[in-house]
Amino acid sequence: MAELAPVALEDLLERFQKGDVRALARALTLVEAGHPLGQALLKALRGRGRAKVVGVTGSPGAGKSTLTDRLILEARKRGERVGVLAVDPSSPFTGGAILGDRIRMMRHHQDPGVYIRSLASRGALGGLAGATVAALSLLEAFGFERIFVETVGVGQSEVDIARVADTTLLVLTPAAGDAVQAFKAGVMEIADLFAVNKFDLPGGERIIQELKSALELAPPRPGGWRPPIYPTVAATGEGVEALFEGLEAHHQHLLAHGLLEGHRLERARFEVESVIQEWGRRRTQDAKELVAQVAQGLLSPEEAALRLLKAEERPL
Amino acid sequence: MAELAPVALEDLLERFQKGDVRALARALTLVEAGHPLGQALLKALRGRGRAKVVGVTGSPGAGKSTLTDRLILEARKRGERVGVLAVDPSSPFTGGAILGDRIRMMRHHQDPGVYIRSLASRGALGGLAGATVAALSLLEAFGFERIFVETVGVGQSEVDIARVADTTLLVLTPAAGDAVQAFKAGVMEIADLFAVNKFDLPGGERIIQELKSALELAPPRPGGWRPPIYPTVAATGEGVEALFEGLEAHHQHLLAHGLLEGHRLERARFEVESVIQEWGRRRTQDAKELVAQVAQGLLSPEEAALRLLKAEERPL
Repeated sequence: MAELAPVALEDLLERFQKGDVRALARALTLVEAGHPLGQALLKALRGRGRAKVVGVTGSPGAGKSTLTDRLILEARKRGERVGVLAVDPSSPFTGGAILGDRIRMMRHHQDPGVYIRSLASRGALGGLAGATVAALSLLEAFGFERIFVETVGVGQSEVDIARVADTTLLVLTPAAGDAVQAFKAGVMEIADLFAVNKFDLPGGERIIQELKSALELAPPRPGGWRPPIYPTVAATGEGVEALFEGLEAHHQHLLAHGLLEGHRLERARFEVESVIQEWGRRRTQDAKELVAQVAQGLLSPEEAALRLLKAEERPL
Repeated sequence: MAELAPVALEDLLERFQKGDVRALARALTLVEAGHPLGQALLKALRGRGRAKVVGVTGSPGAGKSTLTDRLILEARKRGERVGVLAVDPSSPFTGGAILGDRIRMMRHHQDPGVYIRSLASRGALGGLAGATVAALSLLEAFGFERIFVETVGVGQSEVDIARVADTTLLVLTPAAGDAVQAFKAGVMEIADLFAVNKFDLPGGERIIQELKSALELAPPRPGGWRPPIYPTVAATGEGVEALFEGLEAHHQHLLAHGLLEGHRLERARFEVESVIQEWGRRRTQDAKELVAQVAQGLLSPEEAALRLLKAEERPL
């Protein structure tokens, strides 16, 4: 963390609260790096502001970034200030391609009402890091009214995003084929809306029918919400306005049924769990002797875990 | 847990150690249910026996179960006693289909040298549950020489299986297409061997070439292992013998380079982490007041987590 110049908390906080984007950027860097100053900032800022938080997920190649780019335009048309968190897997295999894709969102670079930030995920297939939610809290405190959190949809991060966002959008394509549809089965239960993107490719109508059939078997959602399906062509913007209105309709549904508070509690729960999980990972990594005893069958994992818990004296 | 008849630990342990399969089945049920008797059994049995543990992962529809079925036959030809753990996602969407698939493995039902058990995973897209590793320890203690752990490859469970198994086999198909290949990018780094199954379908050679190119970019593996790629047709058994020999070659590689012990330590580490994670999940679920304070910004997630840790008095 030597590359971070020392900054006084008060100064940074003041600039942040005045709406200085460079202070926001610095704050996000500090939080992502786990810097104590980041923790102090979060302590002062957490719980301020309240954005409509939309999670955007789906397979690589589904066009999530291009679609998010279009959704930003829709939000801007309505005068909303927009923050975007793009969660990248840190895999050396995919990193480059995904970052390249995100360049499409750069057109908003000159728009002071839009702020876009890439964050690393917890390993290539891991879930959202606790730091992602902390970054989200910072964007909210900064005053953004709409925040998109884009995750590459591979397993755990999709489940996590549904716990953190108010509204979860799953992006599919006709090209993805049945295998991917099957793989998405678990995810279907967590999506509040579906976009069938690249709808100009063959097979779009078939995917919509398949989705509809699958959704009929799904358990009822809170407040009787039925996940709608939107055909879109992000490249041209076709269908994106209707999709944006769908996002808005879901938000109104949450408000009308008093469900928003439950989402915020779930997000807090996710944060606390993440802290404990990260703590467990670090302490287990350090506890070589204890782990060796478990491997030899001399100690149960439960006994080892309890010893770690009991030994904890430092703040997390 | 009312459905479990009371059994004395000593009696069950004695029958287990005599090789009574019904005692093994009961022990697995107790462990999966988190029954105290299961914990006591584990305490007595953990660390006994030593199997070659092979993780089999890949997308739904890749033919993992059929391939595992064929691999069981190869192991049996060599006189190995074989245990199989088939980890099912608990999603109501996919559960049925996957279970149906597994019926193919039923041909081994009459073979006393083969024991097959289905286990629930942690949610549809969640990782391996700690109970899966506990079940694995029971199968090892029972004396199986080869254990296959089959997981539906959706994200976290693939990363987890690589931490738990000695050898990780990733099953792909030509039909899966580029999108799935891309999605697999993160998984490629954890696979020790690849099977391109359903190789009789068009596109098999192309997938092999794509895999080879991708693997050239991969970081070097411990001991200089280069993940081999095997074309297979599980339905006919074609290529399965060569694949089995590949599994064996990887095991010999681990032995020759002293890498097996590291795998066992990683497995123990995974178990301890899992216990802490589960503990965190349960305690956070119960701590409604604390979570509400985090949601309101009155308490940081770190403070809340520390309070939970400090308050812990009960055994895990």
